[in-house]
Amino acid sequence: MEARFDAIAAAMGHSFAGEIKIGGHYVSTLQHGSQVFVSGQIPRIGSNVMVTGRAGSDVTLAQTREAARICAMRALALLAQALGSLDRIQQLLRVGVYVQSAADFTQQSEVADAASDLLHEVLGAAGTHTRTSIGVAQLPKNAAVELDLIAAVS
Amino acid sequence: MEARFDAIAAAMGHSFAGEIKIGGHYVSTLQHGSQVFVSGQIPRIGSNVMVTGRAGSDVTLAQTREAARICAMRALALLAQALGSLDRIQQLLRVGVYVQSAADFTQQSEVADAASDLLHEVLGAAGTHTRTSIGVAQLPKNAAVELDLIAAVS
Amino acid sequence: MEARFDAIAAAMGHSFAGEIKIGGHYVSTLQHGSQVFVSGQIPRIGSNVMVTGRAGSDVTLAQTREAARICAMRALALLAQALGSLDRIQQLLRVGVYVQSAADFTQQSEVADAASDLLHEVLGAAGTHTRTSIGVAQLPKNAAVELDLIAAVS
Repeated sequence: MEARFDAIAAAMGHSFAGEIKIGGHYVSTLQHGSQVFVSGQIPRIGSNVMVTGRAGSDVTLAQTREAARICAMRALALLAQALGSLDRIQQLLRVGVYVQSAADFTQQSEVADAASDLLHEVLGAAGTHTRTSIGVAQLPKNAAVELDLIAAVS
Repeated sequence: MEARFDAIAAAMGHSFAGEIKIGGHYVSTLQHGSQVFVSGQIPRIGSNVMVTGRAGSDVTLAQTREAARICAMRALALLAQALGSLDRIQQLLRVGVYVQSAADFTQQSEVADAASDLLHEVLGAAGTHTRTSIGVAQLPKNAAVELDLIAAVS
Repeated sequence: MEARFDAIAAAMGHSFAGEIKIGGHYVSTLQHGSQVFVSGQIPRIGSNVMVTGRAGSDVTLAQTREAARICAMRALALLAQALGSLDRIQQLLRVGVYVQSAADFTQQSEVADAASDLLHEVLGAAGTHTRTSIGVAQLPKNAAVELDLIAAVS
């Protein structure tokens, strides 16, 4: 799975290798029993939020889908760090996709599909998941998309 | 429980019998251990989204509550398909209710109550749940409400 | 942990001792196996919602952070009621922070930090958690913030 992750990262032109730092008293990932929770990820590479603004007005559907892909890659990078290997992911359980949306932007599912497709591409059948996608008023640092997830691990 | 489900469906004038199809690399329900996750459901019957628009401006409280009931029935229909019978639901754990809301619409709890009441009506004590209801900027296909849930099964 | 909870409540000038009543067919907390789910909490003391309106226009960042702290204290009060003691909390798993946000308010993380810091202050290492914070269009009763969580208990 790491090879597919690396190939996608290269195709996207981004490195997800660096440590992801967060402030405050919370953590990026946390395991309890066989479940791993991943905090909400915005499309950040290093200290830059790559896609900001509102889907349907500031950013296009294509840009917002790319934002969702970056969020998904960050979530995978965090899981790889926490677990040692993506191979330990038995099954994604739930993915939440939050899209900063203009009043008339109704393609949240199409945005989320970009993340779902990427997760499946990297993880195969283990990347299948349930999903909730909604359009939100704003997101931290004006991010276009935020994504969180729960995974089952072996 | 199926009898109550069927009676409510008949009273609502809708059939939830058909297969619910989704595109993309995600699924409507997924079981891990004793937990079943259900993807976010919009008030769709077949290919029609029955209640669209913004609570408090485009749609009334009553219409939005009906949307929440349709979402809840869809979630139950999916659980019945996945589990074989609603009787296998030991306890609903968490229900999320997302209401497309006008800037001054603050009755998200009253909308969610319609779903909670229906879930209790069908499932009895097993239908009791924790709940989070929020007002969102938009939803897929301009749906008025989206609902997801986590259930414990025997 | 109760002593720290009481000290913070006193410093905030609020009592969280009363029974928290909710209407409808849902509950404030629900345990399944080692997980406890807590319903979305708004910054209510008794029957008063203490901080209402939209972050970035109606209410300041400081006021919205205080709202998040009240929500977190309510969640802790409910856990203490349900479990008998906060000492039974092994680990918080996931905290959701929903901030009623003006169109250009992007400090949802700074709002959520106030809740995360408080949870850590009361629970110590057990208060560490994963987190998703988003900006929403509205909340029940015009609350400025809503917070829900999942905890692991011993």
